[in-house]
Amino acid sequence: MGIIGSIVLHTVLRIRDLPWLGSRSLQPLEMNGNLMDFLDEPFPDVSTYEDFHTIDWLREKSRDTDRHRKITTKSKESYWELIKSLLDAWSGWVVMLLIGMLTGTLAGVIDLAVDWMTDLKEGVCLSAFYYSHEQCCWTSNETTFDDRDKCPQWQKWAELMTGHSEGAGAYVLNYFLYVLWALLFSFLAVSLVRVFAPYACGSGIPEIKTILSGFIIRGYLGKWTLLIKTVTLVLAVSSGLSLGKEGPLVHVACCCGNLFCSLFSKYSKNEGKRREVLSAAAAAGVSVAFGAPIGGVLFSLEEVSYYFPLKTLWRSFFAALVAAFTLRAINPFGNSRLVLFYVEYHTPWYMAELVPFILLGVFGGLWGTLFIRGNIAWCRRRKTTLLGKYPVLEVIVITGITAVLAFPNPYTRRSTSELISELFNDCGALESSQLCDYVNNPNMSRPVDDIPDRPAGPGVYSALWQLALALIFKIVITIFTFGMKIPSGLFIPSMAVGAIAGRIVGIAVEQMAYHHHDWIIFKNWCRPGADCVTPGLYAMVGAAACLGGVTRMTVSLVVIMFELTGGLEYIVPLMAAAVTSKWVADAFGKEGIYESHIQLNGYPYLDVRDEFTHRTLATDVMRPRRSEPPLAVLTQDSTTVEDVETLIKDTDYNGFPVVVSRESERLIGFVQRRELTVAIKTARQKQDGVVSSSVVYFTEDNPQVAEACDPQPLKLRRILNLSPFTVTDHTPMETVVDIFRKLGLRQCLVTRSG
Amino acid sequence: MGIIGSIVLHTVLRIRDLPWLGSRSLQPLEMNGNLMDFLDEPFPDVSTYEDFHTIDWLREKSRDTDRHRKITTKSKESYWELIKSLLDAWSGWVVMLLIGMLTGTLAGVIDLAVDWMTDLKEGVCLSAFYYSHEQCCWTSNETTFDDRDKCPQWQKWAELMTGHSEGAGAYVLNYFLYVLWALLFSFLAVSLVRVFAPYACGSGIPEIKTILSGFIIRGYLGKWTLLIKTVTLVLAVSSGLSLGKEGPLVHVACCCGNLFCSLFSKYSKNEGKRREVLSAAAAAGVSVAFGAPIGGVLFSLEEVSYYFPLKTLWRSFFAALVAAFTLRAINPFGNSRLVLFYVEYHTPWYMAELVPFILLGVFGGLWGTLFIRGNIAWCRRRKTTLLGKYPVLEVIVITGITAVLAFPNPYTRRSTSELISELFNDCGALESSQLCDYVNNPNMSRPVDDIPDRPAGPGVYSALWQLALALIFKIVITIFTFGMKIPSGLFIPSMAVGAIAGRIVGIAVEQMAYHHHDWIIFKNWCRPGADCVTPGLYAMVGAAACLGGVTRMTVSLVVIMFELTGGLEYIVPLMAAAVTSKWVADAFGKEGIYESHIQLNGYPYLDVRDEFTHRTLATDVMRPRRSEPPLAVLTQDSTTVEDVETLIKDTDYNGFPVVVSRESERLIGFVQRRELTVAIKTARQKQDGVVSSSVVYFTEDNPQVAEACDPQPLKLRRILNLSPFTVTDHTPMETVVDIFRKLGLRQCLVTRSG
Repeated sequence: MGIIGSIVLHTVLRIRDLPWLGSRSLQPLEMNGNLMDFLDEPFPDVSTYEDFHTIDWLREKSRDTDRHRKITTKSKESYWELIKSLLDAWSGWVVMLLIGMLTGTLAGVIDLAVDWMTDLKEGVCLSAFYYSHEQCCWTSNETTFDDRDKCPQWQKWAELMTGHSEGAGAYVLNYFLYVLWALLFSFLAVSLVRVFAPYACGSGIPEIKTILSGFIIRGYLGKWTLLIKTVTLVLAVSSGLSLGKEGPLVHVACCCGNLFCSLFSKYSKNEGKRREVLSAAAAAGVSVAFGAPIGGVLFSLEEVSYYFPLKTLWRSFFAALVAAFTLRAINPFGNSRLVLFYVEYHTPWYMAELVPFILLGVFGGLWGTLFIRGNIAWCRRRKTTLLGKYPVLEVIVITGITAVLAFPNPYTRRSTSELISELFNDCGALESSQLCDYVNNPNMSRPVDDIPDRPAGPGVYSALWQLALALIFKIVITIFTFGMKIPSGLFIPSMAVGAIAGRIVGIAVEQMAYHHHDWIIFKNWCRPGADCVTPGLYAMVGAAACLGGVTRMTVSLVVIMFELTGGLEYIVPLMAAAVTSKWVADAFGKEGIYESHIQLNGYPYLDVRDEFTHRTLATDVMRPRRSEPPLAVLTQDSTTVEDVETLIKDTDYNGFPVVVSRESERLIGFVQRRELTVAIKTARQKQDGVVSSSVVYFTEDNPQVAEACDPQPLKLRRILNLSPFTVTDHTPMETVVDIFRKLGLRQCLVTRSG
Repeated sequence: MGIIGSIVLHTVLRIRDLPWLGSRSLQPLEMNGNLMDFLDEPFPDVSTYEDFHTIDWLREKSRDTDRHRKITTKSKESYWELIKSLLDAWSGWVVMLLIGMLTGTLAGVIDLAVDWMTDLKEGVCLSAFYYSHEQCCWTSNETTFDDRDKCPQWQKWAELMTGHSEGAGAYVLNYFLYVLWALLFSFLAVSLVRVFAPYACGSGIPEIKTILSGFIIRGYLGKWTLLIKTVTLVLAVSSGLSLGKEGPLVHVACCCGNLFCSLFSKYSKNEGKRREVLSAAAAAGVSVAFGAPIGGVLFSLEEVSYYFPLKTLWRSFFAALVAAFTLRAINPFGNSRLVLFYVEYHTPWYMAELVPFILLGVFGGLWGTLFIRGNIAWCRRRKTTLLGKYPVLEVIVITGITAVLAFPNPYTRRSTSELISELFNDCGALESSQLCDYVNNPNMSRPVDDIPDRPAGPGVYSALWQLALALIFKIVITIFTFGMKIPSGLFIPSMAVGAIAGRIVGIAVEQMAYHHHDWIIFKNWCRPGADCVTPGLYAMVGAAACLGGVTRMTVSLVVIMFELTGGLEYIVPLMAAAVTSKWVADAFGKEGIYESHIQLNGYPYLDVRDEFTHRTLATDVMRPRRSEPPLAVLTQDSTTVEDVETLIKDTDYNGFPVVVSRESERLIGFVQRRELTVAIKTARQKQDGVVSSSVVYFTEDNPQVAEACDPQPLKLRRILNLSPFTVTDHTPMETVVDIFRKLGLRQCLVTRSG
């Protein structure tokens, strides 16, 4: 059987049908900062793979098995070795514990800092400048929420500077300072990113997906990126831009994971094992982002990870729990709640409400499509036009526009997560928000948590207008914001769009049900005086739908929402909306935002979910093609050192098959380009008698060379991989793709019999 | 390159280090019932695989891709074809919906029937004989729980027959009838199983694991098994034997899955796709067993499934939710609760309590080890000695012993799930149970749900003795019960053992804390008059530990328990116990009860979690070994029909490699034994001129035979698999095992170059 060609991972990637990626090439993120080279060390000791190359999973796995076997054998020798082997076995759990604790701590610190700095745009606490608005007024003795918001210790900038808290002058001054602070924060953020850690920008999830699938991006998860991303994340969120902290938190958690990997050689020296840790770290990141540990694990499993063995599942769960509990110990929200948006509804939902829920799902799907198309188009423009040359200016301009437009509208002025939280909330009796300005029946005395539907007051109607404007503003600005050179997540903006739309629909349904009790659809489930519609639930369903439309998450989305509400009661509405949104969005394009960005950046990512539908055989896609010169091969006992060097110089293959002889082409093994280069270089320096005309031997037996013969042979069998992966030329391509996916190969040789 | 051998799945299985399975052979379950052959049809249309054979995942997958491609192509032709293709795309969801609904309904019916029949052993409801005790007394107007239990409509058998409800005579009569009913139920159960569906016995999870890993057991998931298992499950649980309904419910759900598969050719004709549906059905089964949909999905992922793509995750989740909601609509527990054991605790736990929790974990691990060893030893004895010949007698004897010993003790007399429910409960003020007989401080007036620790009353002490006896009884009898020829799950008995032990420990800690407030360990967290210890929580932690020790579940266990309590508060105690229990149990033996039963029955199951540590190469394990005659091969153009027939008759290989010629042994392809047999048989009947001396051709080109030459050639290239899987003889065995696992191969050919 002769060896007739090879398929490398890139070929496999390329044959997928990607219309607009015909001539794509690897485009690493721009490396603007020169400082970085000095500050950020590469992964230590992983000399086998070069930057922007793909790892060989099978090889990593067998290296780990070897290591494990060695330790097990040794552990029987002495007590010291036994202890060392036990430590080795426990190191996985130690790493998880450390990741959980650091991730939880960082998330807590980020939450506190964002709270403080967001409020700093509006005013300052006189009793202690490092208090946020809420902390400042916490001890104040005003009773209602509304009064408490206006506690004397907290002063707006205008009040502090001019002494007047009302009037046009104070408004303009507050407006001006709000914009100024926003610009300052965003300028700091983008400058830090540019100068110190260009990898700290964006959400990070597309890159992490790629890294977890086996790609090497040096420095992407380095210490320096960790530090800068944490700082700039706080600045970016505080600046009031339409972005969230959830995606970047996953990146931060993965950086923590990578950091702790370097403590244990088990993980730092094996790229495969390292990726197991990173998967667990991603789970911890989502766990602290939402306070949803199970949702985090499922997010890692469904959305981020590539290779996720059961052992990793259990460890991810552990890391996610530790992170969640660390965050709770820090208690940044001041309410002992783990979750970002804690909600509790008092009324069930009714079958008829599924219609608006499904409509919200459709809206979510359409939003997802619009966002992905718009954002990708804008990002492509950024990559190809002059725009990409001025990232700082771009951020400043977008921040300026955002701040100027956001201030006049109370729903966009505050931070997005506060907005979502208010939209999710059910209107209790004590609520002072404008959204809860209903006309109360004076002679009604019902318990606080069971208020019947009431007609909307003027506050609600003005809130509706403001919300509608906020919706349009958020939709447009988010498309331009995501992808700028600052840390930016899109969970929160997406959820905000959905929550606003959902709340508007919810209030509309509620008022319709109140005013038209006699309509057939309302007759059965909504009697007068009953509490039948919960607008907050609509906001939640809308948020889930929009998030689903953008990211195409399914199980993890529903589980995260389930953990937020803490009950199975509302799973059906959430699922209905999530499923609808996914179907609608899928109808316009199969890829979620992360996959789209992966393609845009040209990362080599082999999606597990892609169905391969071509009817090609291995022989059609392998290199060399029929018209090209034959595959470059080495023979086992007739190539000279010079030949090899020429071959290495002339070609750019990752490695070369070794055959018996050029005539029979029977395959013996495969040798890596990198190892061959190193071996020849070392031999030339260290080994006597190895010159250009030395023959390179890959055979098992010692070549019987005449002793006198001058050029000493160079024996390289030890670097020869004796078990290269082969398929026959008639193997259907879907099987080949499946093999690449499941075994994580880098290349595979094609053989033909006869 | 020459083909030198082959590795089949069995070899891969055999080389794992199984000390006591040296000479194992496949032992299908005994097929006692002859009736079955007529009543239970085999899987329709799956003629490719024989019974007790393993499927080829890669082949199934590529068949499905072909089918899908065909439908996509056709759908462009006409509207009708488009509709058909849409229906095909939706069929997966329809199947899930149907499975969810049927599983939920069956679970509800089983719950109701078990409730009624369990109470039937003690008495009958006079107002309606089909009411259970609780339903009977539901409308009664007694106020306290204790009085309500003695409502006049409900009469014990002695009362009904003799008119006396008290006294020795009544006690003996009740005792006698209790045992009699138990014997009747279990006799019915075992007889039905024996006569109609021998596959309906046991928990079914080991077999389902094996089936999902790609093994064929005809009739195991048939309609007949479904019917008989449902009926006998009710009988077995009602008889009061120490067994649960959770495992069998998974089997029932999988039978439903298989039933609905047969409605769609997409699933009925493809064994790979069928297994995706079965994985989802298993999730639905656990979902209704505990009312924990997310836990069910994770159980299916972690414990049962082999091939679990992301698409299946999402569908499983859907099926699990539908099942849970169907069950809730039926509402068998009468409390709108989804979960089997709903608990709500009012006090947090303290760090110091981790010590008893971890001790409970150790107990759970030891119980797991004891149970697995004892049960496996007993089952082996059953298989090898006379005991196995009399399954009916065995069931009758064990039921008799169980009933006779269980009746005197109130904690074993009632159903096990009621017992667990009581043990989990926190003692409220209204609780009338003996376990809550604390000495109340008369001048205390605190809210109902915040009762401080109190000294135990006499009732608690007598309850402790009874619980201790019940613990020993449960431990011993469960070992002998699991594995009998009736449906039997071990979740509930395991949880009962743990809950009893946990409650005892909990009460001990509680009393210690009450009486010794001044001890250092209690000083910090337990002031007098505070409610510091919740014995119910200890019971729950103990149950989790014991269940974990037996099944070695991790994530799914914690998630199920999380869904039962509905809060993250108690996850740390549960995790601590689950982790400890798994580690302790793993120290004595890596296998859980399901894996042990799989090995005991000799099913070919390749565990995903086994680490392969041998240092062997493919060449060492392949067949034929060096000393044996060379591999049986066919040549592409020189074998006659007679040769082939002799080869098929003389060997029992699954298939034969086809090579260019006997000298060069260059591999062309692989042909399945079964397909070869069928092809030759058909050719002999239908094709003129094919006789014993006809030459079989596997070549692509038409053989140039002289027209006149009498024996017509037989062309069989169409049944030749042109892309057999090959590895070189130097491939390390762990890589081979990995390939078998991940790609689901049946065999793989070993080649050697030169």
